[in-house]
Amino acid sequence: MSNVKLAIMYYSSTGSNYKLAKWAEEGAKTTGADVKVLRVPETAPKEAVESNPAWKAHLEETKDVPEATLDDLEWADAIIFSTPTRFGNVPAQMKQFFDTAGGLWMEGKLVNKVVSAMTSAQNAHGGQEQTLLSLYTSMFHWGALVATPGYTDESIFAGGGNPYGTSVTVDQDGKMQEDVEAAVKHQAKRTVQVAEWVKNGQQ
Amino acid sequence: MSNVKLAIMYYSSTGSNYKLAKWAEEGAKTTGADVKVLRVPETAPKEAVESNPAWKAHLEETKDVPEATLDDLEWADAIIFSTPTRFGNVPAQMKQFFDTAGGLWMEGKLVNKVVSAMTSAQNAHGGQEQTLLSLYTSMFHWGALVATPGYTDESIFAGGGNPYGTSVTVDQDGKMQEDVEAAVKHQAKRTVQVAEWVKNGQQ
Amino acid sequence: MSNVKLAIMYYSSTGSNYKLAKWAEEGAKTTGADVKVLRVPETAPKEAVESNPAWKAHLEETKDVPEATLDDLEWADAIIFSTPTRFGNVPAQMKQFFDTAGGLWMEGKLVNKVVSAMTSAQNAHGGQEQTLLSLYTSMFHWGALVATPGYTDESIFAGGGNPYGTSVTVDQDGKMQEDVEAAVKHQAKRTVQVAEWVKNGQQ
Amino acid sequence: MSNVKLAIMYYSSTGSNYKLAKWAEEGAKTTGADVKVLRVPETAPKEAVESNPAWKAHLEETKDVPEATLDDLEWADAIIFSTPTRFGNVPAQMKQFFDTAGGLWMEGKLVNKVVSAMTSAQNAHGGQEQTLLSLYTSMFHWGALVATPGYTDESIFAGGGNPYGTSVTVDQDGKMQEDVEAAVKHQAKRTVQVAEWVKNGQQ
Repeated sequence: MSNVKLAIMYYSSTGSNYKLAKWAEEGAKTTGADVKVLRVPETAPKEAVESNPAWKAHLEETKDVPEATLDDLEWADAIIFSTPTRFGNVPAQMKQFFDTAGGLWMEGKLVNKVVSAMTSAQNAHGGQEQTLLSLYTSMFHWGALVATPGYTDESIFAGGGNPYGTSVTVDQDGKMQEDVEAAVKHQAKRTVQVAEWVKNGQQ
Repeated sequence: MSNVKLAIMYYSSTGSNYKLAKWAEEGAKTTGADVKVLRVPETAPKEAVESNPAWKAHLEETKDVPEATLDDLEWADAIIFSTPTRFGNVPAQMKQFFDTAGGLWMEGKLVNKVVSAMTSAQNAHGGQEQTLLSLYTSMFHWGALVATPGYTDESIFAGGGNPYGTSVTVDQDGKMQEDVEAAVKHQAKRTVQVAEWVKNGQQ
Repeated sequence: MSNVKLAIMYYSSTGSNYKLAKWAEEGAKTTGADVKVLRVPETAPKEAVESNPAWKAHLEETKDVPEATLDDLEWADAIIFSTPTRFGNVPAQMKQFFDTAGGLWMEGKLVNKVVSAMTSAQNAHGGQEQTLLSLYTSMFHWGALVATPGYTDESIFAGGGNPYGTSVTVDQDGKMQEDVEAAVKHQAKRTVQVAEWVKNGQQ
Repeated sequence: MSNVKLAIMYYSSTGSNYKLAKWAEEGAKTTGADVKVLRVPETAPKEAVESNPAWKAHLEETKDVPEATLDDLEWADAIIFSTPTRFGNVPAQMKQFFDTAGGLWMEGKLVNKVVSAMTSAQNAHGGQEQTLLSLYTSMFHWGALVATPGYTDESIFAGGGNPYGTSVTVDQDGKMQEDVEAAVKHQAKRTVQVAEWVKNGQQ
């Protein structure tokens, strides 16, 4: 029974990364970890959201998901980020959330968090690798321990074999092109497991 | 006499990247290029800005600098971005500006822009390389032609020899630690020159 | 009729990148460019090659392809590199070739080459993006102008929409999983076109 | 008293990374870890080495340092790599060593190694960040746990504040420009500490 506190922090405009986050939650809960699914705050202007029916609908649907806060960052032993790719990097919304953590960073409160990440893109090679690696670069600034899936499970290959984190191609209608559910669940369990080693090892 | 239209788009909270942008303007103007210095919109909440006197003062000082727009992106033959590093990546403000260009991107209107970038950080190795490289990754999505300084001028070495773009270390009082003025001016001239080749070559 | 001198420099152990290089040659030749296909020298110990029949056979088959030399680097206006990914980076053979160019680099003879690259991997997300981006990082040191495909042609989407360069997934039997021939030819033509602009613009 | 087995694997042509490796050894030994300093095999042609007196001399001086082997990779709980930068990436010698680990990788024997890295370059921004990050990309393929220094100790700032790993600027006479000894020792202790958590946590 894991004693790990896991925050799954996602940003999603039309739902793909919310789905990844929920699968991760399912996977992580089988370990007994204390899991929170948290929505990274939307920062886009209201007009932008309103102009895209799928975006507006998803925001409405998830309005009861708690927003990710700095307290959650501090609380967590492990964090799984899930984020779309935008031009080969995390979207501004996710970056904005990271940027607000300057105070915690200065106090050293982000150190030794065990981190992994997931992503989605419209094209198979549309920045899926690079978005994850950019995110990890920020995590190195935080002093996090980065625990990617590598090729630690057969399920990873079905999702396209991304060793940096589960990634999925989503077409213009929002349909996932690969079956990554098992890969997501494996990643969640692995992240919790590494965090458990680190936590128990420290005691 | 260059016929190149150059947009120098900077984000600056306390002034370092504004200074880099102004030096770039000076350098570029010696080529006869048509140069605009443009401020990437601030997206931080008012409270955040107000809580930091240096940030508030700089925003006030530069309130007459025109804000960068999508029209400016379309107008430009060449773009020099100047941006601080935040956790080894561009700040949310800069990313937000990129993210709004999805429409232009879809219409193919960002293709073949000649691009280079500059950055600043508090530590010498605090993400200065990685911020520039992340920015270029986004530029590859746009179909830009990335023309970094490399080691094309002696001045580059004085600034720490960053081949990806001029970068400067800025201490907590906002004082630049290296003399990068000549490197910035060289970079500006080189960016215009490459853009001129591309523009004239196309005619 | 293009006046560009294009070097297509590939490393291939079992033939995929040789095939990409040959397609690029075909594409580039339609522009009238002066094209050389050049094999980056094998540096693996003889035993390693002998132990893999496909590797040995391909090396034998291509023994008449001229080896890439420093003179070819100097000669070229434009270079297309084609290389497999090994653990998310270029293989040692390709890196060894780059590393030998220190002398040319010091003399400034690598400046302003127009460069793009292609790659292959066994998994769809097995380092295809990152291998290209690492290669471009080295090119920035050389002062090259990096001209990736972006999304400048419909054919790019069929190959998985990699804006950093054409990439292909190759199964364990050496079979390409996506049809990238048109994307490769487009990339070759685009690389020549940009190099032509730069070359003519300089005159 | 740490029960961790640490391999410090370095490549050095003229001695800087050997020095970093020896400092790391000193730091790590204070934890009681079982430490091996291992030389990544030289693969450059004899003529290249002979043509550079400093290179030849260093190779001669360190001829009794054991060469890093695949068995050492398998043996280690934790690995610290130390490598110069060459054009913003690891040199061919280091990449060649990684590339030979394909067999171990396939058997899953590289999983959960705790890894960090150090580097040197002639210019302050001459690829010091990017070399470390490229190396970590390969480590993600291996399923390693990447534990960089972040900003976990005051000593890191003296060395230029590189959160990805200790890096040092070395002038043309081989003189280190920053005092990184304390940062190296801290990094070594931190790498051992994280590996100890992981190892003990697993038991």
